[in-house]
Amino acid sequence: MVKAVILLSGGIDSSTTLAFAKREGYECYALSFDYGQRHRIELEASQKIAQLLGVKRHLIIRFDMREIGGSALTGDFEVPTVTFATKKERLQSQIEIPVTYVPARNTIFLSFALAWAEVLEAPYIFIGANAIDYSGYPDCRPEYLWAFEDMANLATKASVEGRLRFEIKAPLLYMTKAEIIRLGTSLGLDYSLTWSCYNPQEKAGKLLPCGRCDSCYFRIKGFKQAGMEDPLHYA
Amino acid sequence: MVKAVILLSGGIDSSTTLAFAKREGYECYALSFDYGQRHRIELEASQKIAQLLGVKRHLIIRFDMREIGGSALTGDFEVPTVTFATKKERLQSQIEIPVTYVPARNTIFLSFALAWAEVLEAPYIFIGANAIDYSGYPDCRPEYLWAFEDMANLATKASVEGRLRFEIKAPLLYMTKAEIIRLGTSLGLDYSLTWSCYNPQEKAGKLLPCGRCDSCYFRIKGFKQAGMEDPLHYA
Repeated sequence: MVKAVILLSGGIDSSTTLAFAKREGYECYALSFDYGQRHRIELEASQKIAQLLGVKRHLIIRFDMREIGGSALTGDFEVPTVTFATKKERLQSQIEIPVTYVPARNTIFLSFALAWAEVLEAPYIFIGANAIDYSGYPDCRPEYLWAFEDMANLATKASVEGRLRFEIKAPLLYMTKAEIIRLGTSLGLDYSLTWSCYNPQEKAGKLLPCGRCDSCYFRIKGFKQAGMEDPLHYA
Repeated sequence: MVKAVILLSGGIDSSTTLAFAKREGYECYALSFDYGQRHRIELEASQKIAQLLGVKRHLIIRFDMREIGGSALTGDFEVPTVTFATKKERLQSQIEIPVTYVPARNTIFLSFALAWAEVLEAPYIFIGANAIDYSGYPDCRPEYLWAFEDMANLATKASVEGRLRFEIKAPLLYMTKAEIIRLGTSLGLDYSLTWSCYNPQEKAGKLLPCGRCDSCYFRIKGFKQAGMEDPLHYA
């Protein structure tokens, strides 16, 4: 079996990517990060999904991005509420990358994935990046991913010695959220286990998704467009 | 003052790079990593040097590369002893990259530097990479560094929005270790504060450099070729 490292946040995109990689026959190594995110609850989702999908190993790397800051997700700003509903308004808002952007996050995540892939001798690194229904983060765009791949193949002992050529695989890159949800559903993925919300709300001692942040917005829209019911309850 | 992030391990190259960046007039932000290295004592050196050179801030990021493994520096193998003395033998040995290579280490370090640089609005990231008197690590070579720079400028909100263009600066890239030591000395750098050894040895309750690892080898050779005395005492 060919090995692959899969970045797994526990959201819809990364969970579907893992289900897809499993279906394609890879031996899957899931990698998650406890980086000081305010929606740390996503790690519980990632653990459930990694276990349910039978990954070979699930590694959670810990570091504190709050020391670097610069993001609403690490507590420097409030998570903004998405107050617009139409696609046109949404597109207009995307002129600015939202404050939920975390500086160089995917670069840091992919760098750890590269290190692990080299040790495992895994040529493939899967990432659930999406450039259609997304927040406009620069490190989700195809040109970024391919630049990372080029760099990765100059960075490592295994690639320089000709033993491995690393490939970044982003199978969801050009899919809409609705298409992603339909794909995952066809793969038997239980979306009730996933977590998307950036800004969890406590209600009767339980954390619920806010339903109003960027990430909830795309999730809710995706289920709606897929003609399916989102199994999560919102605050 | 233009800001710069400087990767600082506390060794000769990174300390000289910091002294150089200070001399060039940058406002310096030093970045070090506590990553499970067996020569963790280098962090004490980095702290002394950061303080002495008056950096604006010194940040130490913590994560555990031992979970990923694959390196003598994180305890998976013994640190090999350099048993050859001539340049020819040294060059022959460099056909293989030594086991002190840490998978994707500079990629991880530069990724955190990029995140911090973006938050600080610092266009420059200094790294003490050297491709002359070095262990053959792939992530010290110029082609790698420029590929990282290309990727970095596609990765970040600040670069995509046109506010910053990141530049990786490696002023020591083509210098011999002797040239580096002479440069640092001319900048007033006190090399007694630096730490190079991969494999510290305890002697009378004190940690001393081994004098036999790859890193000690280049240090000792550098001082010898510079016609100077290494201020460190070896085990």
